Amino acid sequence: MAGITINVCTTCRRGVPDDAEAPRPGTDLLNALEAADLPEGVTLRGVECLSACSNGCSIALTGGPGRWTYVYGNLDPAEHVPEIVQGASAYAATEDGLVPWRERPVIFRKQSIARIPPQE
Amino acid sequence: MAGITINVCTTCRRGVPDDAEAPRPGTDLLNALEAADLPEGVTLRGVECLSACSNGCSIALTGGPGRWTYVYGNLDPAEHVPEIVQGASAYAATEDGLVPWRERPVIFRKQSIARIPPQE
Repeated sequence: MAGITINVCTTCRRGVPDDAEAPRPGTDLLNALEAADLPEGVTLRGVECLSACSNGCSIALTGGPGRWTYVYGNLDPAEHVPEIVQGASAYAATEDGLVPWRERPVIFRKQSIARIPPQE
Repeated sequence: MAGITINVCTTCRRGVPDDAEAPRPGTDLLNALEAADLPEGVTLRGVECLSACSNGCSIALTGGPGRWTYVYGNLDPAEHVPEIVQGASAYAATEDGLVPWRERPVIFRKQSIARIPPQE
């Protein structure tokens, strides 16, 4: 089965005033995910701006042309990493990206910004 | 150059109360785009729910693994079809999906919900 990617917006401000000295909350989220225990087949990628600025922190789950893409927002680097890992693992275990509703973590059920159908 | 697809959410309610007798605003948008003069290489596809319900009507522009994907929302079937066609045409003319900012229609500049990087 093809691997999946967690695309993490590294420029998200998450509503906090910008501080040139401090890393952005989006970068904090990428760092927190890098420190987490990701299953095989799950790749992390930092992206400068997912254009979801009013709903940062944000991530996009992609898994090739056969899977639905999902975008999630309003994520908290200090709180949501375990649920993101759980949800990404469930997504990686599917062929088409469609995880049964009850198996999705609560943040994926409630904080979806958009989904995009497979391109093949 | 690979063709592109305008994925139109047909189930969007656009904040109006649901009326079982009337077509949904998302379906109206699909119909209005079907009646428009789309350039070669631009395909329309109706999709049941892009999970952008609080920002309907919504569309997603996709163009294969080499292009960025863009999701736009708060679209009006009666007002925005010419700009959607213009923006989709400009998107179709790129290799990577990145249209220079000034060449994007205003609704694409102001009503972006998310963008997703190329998967290759």
